Amino acid sequence: MTDAEAMAAAIALGEDARGTTAPNPNVGCVIVNQGRIVGRGATASSGRPHAEAIALDEAADSARGATLYVTLEPCAHRSERGPACADLIAAAGIARVVAALGDPDPRTDGKGFARLNDARIEVVVGEGANAAAASLAGFLTRIRAGRPFVTLKLAMSIDGKIALPSGESRWITGEDARADVHLERARCDTILVGRGTLEADDPRLDVRLPGLEARSPRRALLTRGAAPEGWTRIGAPEEIFALEGVNDLLVEGGSAAASAFLAADLVDRLLIYRAPILVGDGKSALGWIGLTDLAAAHGRWRLTGARMLGRDRLEVYERERN
Amino acid sequence: MTDAEAMAAAIALGEDARGTTAPNPNVGCVIVNQGRIVGRGATASSGRPHAEAIALDEAADSARGATLYVTLEPCAHRSERGPACADLIAAAGIARVVAALGDPDPRTDGKGFARLNDARIEVVVGEGANAAAASLAGFLTRIRAGRPFVTLKLAMSIDGKIALPSGESRWITGEDARADVHLERARCDTILVGRGTLEADDPRLDVRLPGLEARSPRRALLTRGAAPEGWTRIGAPEEIFALEGVNDLLVEGGSAAASAFLAADLVDRLLIYRAPILVGDGKSALGWIGLTDLAAAHGRWRLTGARMLGRDRLEVYERERN
Repeated sequence: MTDAEAMAAAIALGEDARGTTAPNPNVGCVIVNQGRIVGRGATASSGRPHAEAIALDEAADSARGATLYVTLEPCAHRSERGPACADLIAAAGIARVVAALGDPDPRTDGKGFARLNDARIEVVVGEGANAAAASLAGFLTRIRAGRPFVTLKLAMSIDGKIALPSGESRWITGEDARADVHLERARCDTILVGRGTLEADDPRLDVRLPGLEARSPRRALLTRGAAPEGWTRIGAPEEIFALEGVNDLLVEGGSAAASAFLAADLVDRLLIYRAPILVGDGKSALGWIGLTDLAAAHGRWRLTGARMLGRDRLEVYERERN
Repeated sequence: MTDAEAMAAAIALGEDARGTTAPNPNVGCVIVNQGRIVGRGATASSGRPHAEAIALDEAADSARGATLYVTLEPCAHRSERGPACADLIAAAGIARVVAALGDPDPRTDGKGFARLNDARIEVVVGEGANAAAASLAGFLTRIRAGRPFVTLKLAMSIDGKIALPSGESRWITGEDARADVHLERARCDTILVGRGTLEADDPRLDVRLPGLEARSPRRALLTRGAAPEGWTRIGAPEEIFALEGVNDLLVEGGSAAASAFLAADLVDRLLIYRAPILVGDGKSALGWIGLTDLAAAHGRWRLTGARMLGRDRLEVYERERN
């Protein structure tokens, strides 16, 4: 098993936990001894135990002399909820740690690696860094920018429409695409819609996938008025800087909410579910997003992935920021 | 060299001639003797000589005992412009003919294969049939449906917009995408635009690719009024049934002309040049296309190809007709 293969396994474990660990990062970890995975872990719901502690617990005595692969720098801070992972790793006799990324959290930020070095453990950083950063984008954005990572989902026709002039919008996309949206919901902490969508569709915004029903995220409403019982009220997109404990925010619509977040330049990723249909006259996916000339529209979005979902196609674009 | 490889070479030769041979089909032909291509041809401009005659001329004595690969059934009709290809093939001593498709033209329609059989030449039909049918779609549609094969080109943003509210539309897509449009122009016989596009953009609709300038197609205007000198006037989409000698028609816009052809269900293929930009408020690619419910929008278009052109992406959709 190569370092790349082991790290890919760790990233997959962490990705499965996305949407359940905020405000903690969704870290993944595997321990490999003599070519065999002897322990695996991901940050537990609500953030503890950490991935490394779970993997070390599974590995038990097999941790001695083994290599530990982890998507984020092990923590160096003790808390009342548990010991520092760097100390646990040293105590278990791990010989080598391969980490994808350093942890920008000021409580760690290099101190975890230093503690491992002090314990004479070999440390390698950077394996799988891009994939780990994509999976941990919510946590990293919260630490670095002070707000959640914002994903905007839009389901539209070839020609960018989300409904007929009558308002009919069921269905643009097919079952496979809608199931994929439910999976994305499970990996977010909070879903946001606008008042129009709340009133028109009364959306449940829950996860309707077998086994994942319990992972339905919190709900937020973009409105100048009041929010229903149990919903978080967001008066303007900029208020997401005040959200606590949200790594991943999914904006699901409608057009006004989507446009408001784009106009505020607070969208990091677009999920475009594109149906192979033409609509013509109808409701456009977006309204005013603050664009005054075409030159300003270019260079902002990069197509980073695409795949077929039945007859529909998912296009993923990411915001290019310098 | 396998039959599939030789036929692929013949199809490529025929495709290069698309847009220059109407009303004749853009046929391609190669002759293979002992594993080596000894002759190649494509229908000449204006339709004569035929591909087979050109390939046989190059092969000369090497045609004896060779296999001839051709994208369409060799013709069986003598004309004042030349002898029947089936007779030329027999006279040259070709041992085997591999054809992709039969020719639905009633003057041939099986008579070409029959003539070859009579001359004791082995005949195989069907190799590369799908790719050949795609390349010959213009000719085949004209013979079977009595009208050109219609391609609609649309250059739009992720959200289906072709201009800002101000009308600014230069540029949505980049240079690579625009060069691809010029190549598509060279492979069509006629380009059509609507009156709005003519007046707003005064489009040249020519081919600005080195070496292909002479392949600029004829121009047609969709209008209830008069057309400029040198342009073909089309009063309504249905009038394309009266066009003579046009295999491939490219509808280039604007929104009104595109929508009229879609409403009349007279579009066979969509070329969507998609720029990775969001526009928001602006001019939609399409207006009213006759859609009254979403169910009717489904099952009409199939994504048959896609490729990147610089930062833009070309999506090709074909109309599914039963």
